[in-house]
Amino acid sequence: MANNPLDPLILELAKLPGIGPKSAQRLAFHLLSLPETDVVNMANIMMTVRQSIQYCDTCFNISLSTNCHICSDYSRQHAQLCIVAEPKDIFAIERTQEFKGVYHVLGGLISPLDGAYPDTLRIAELIERLKKSEYSEIILAINPTIEGESTILYLQSLLKSYTVKVSTLAYGLPVGSDMDYADELTLQKAFLGRRWVESK
Amino acid sequence: MANNPLDPLILELAKLPGIGPKSAQRLAFHLLSLPETDVVNMANIMMTVRQSIQYCDTCFNISLSTNCHICSDYSRQHAQLCIVAEPKDIFAIERTQEFKGVYHVLGGLISPLDGAYPDTLRIAELIERLKKSEYSEIILAINPTIEGESTILYLQSLLKSYTVKVSTLAYGLPVGSDMDYADELTLQKAFLGRRWVESK
Repeated sequence: MANNPLDPLILELAKLPGIGPKSAQRLAFHLLSLPETDVVNMANIMMTVRQSIQYCDTCFNISLSTNCHICSDYSRQHAQLCIVAEPKDIFAIERTQEFKGVYHVLGGLISPLDGAYPDTLRIAELIERLKKSEYSEIILAINPTIEGESTILYLQSLLKSYTVKVSTLAYGLPVGSDMDYADELTLQKAFLGRRWVESK
Repeated sequence: MANNPLDPLILELAKLPGIGPKSAQRLAFHLLSLPETDVVNMANIMMTVRQSIQYCDTCFNISLSTNCHICSDYSRQHAQLCIVAEPKDIFAIERTQEFKGVYHVLGGLISPLDGAYPDTLRIAELIERLKKSEYSEIILAINPTIEGESTILYLQSLLKSYTVKVSTLAYGLPVGSDMDYADELTLQKAFLGRRWVESK
């Protein structure tokens, strides 16, 4: 459709992940239906957040300053370190409210095919932190994928030279799932990681 | 998560239709991963399009001026008028490249429960157009819903006093569908609207 006045907006919205041409059009019509001030406000927040975001100097989480809101929170356990691949993993873990320590963002996983080697990740920075501070526990909260497993193996061998307890997340059946639908590898991991029920 | 620097952006994106909190977070991270200029550009397009859009004085389609790109296109058949409920219906019809006439946007459908009566729709403007111009055909391209059917009935009785051919869209089985899964009403309409195969 030539000269369609919504086209530039639809094209722009369709660049977003998970937004196809139809969703982009629906979003564009929604934006038209909003008061002008709401759209200006949304656009301003997009620009402001993008322009003001930086990375924490310590853990490399996204932050508004050189010290993120987790690293600067002294009510957290700074001796518990959780290693994650990306800042978005921190969001997922924070939602569980299970972990009260601090984080270290690797900035990816070891994946030679994608050109991601240990020296392209923030592993030198991790070693620096291990030298400077004493940690009681390190949790490798890394996705159970091929790249994740390689990264875990690499970190496990690297961390052997430090006197610190290292753990990985539990693998097994997702809560609410049906054994019948689980893949063999997950069910195998669930068997290997079986836990004894305490007898009373 | 207190003081999360992405929260304002996530909250804003989650206001969009079809975007839940998880998608909003994924979109926010995507926006962070883009170059700053891309985000500023997207935000500017959002504001510019929203601020510059208006409605066509003739057909009430969205437009950048008082005369939309369809009404001002003299290669189209201005004697064929297609009546639709919303501007987004024009987009759907234009994608088919089947219709080369002009449109009239009612701005909704008759729905007394939602407070939408004939006088809240652009029916007075439609009558004005019918008085001013001569149309060879009027197509009621209106969704086959209860509100759509009432609007079609209303328009059909209204248009009786004008010497113009009026048609509605065909109802029947969607292309690629399975009769077994069609609801009774659709299958009934498909029977009622059956077409004779020409014998050669």
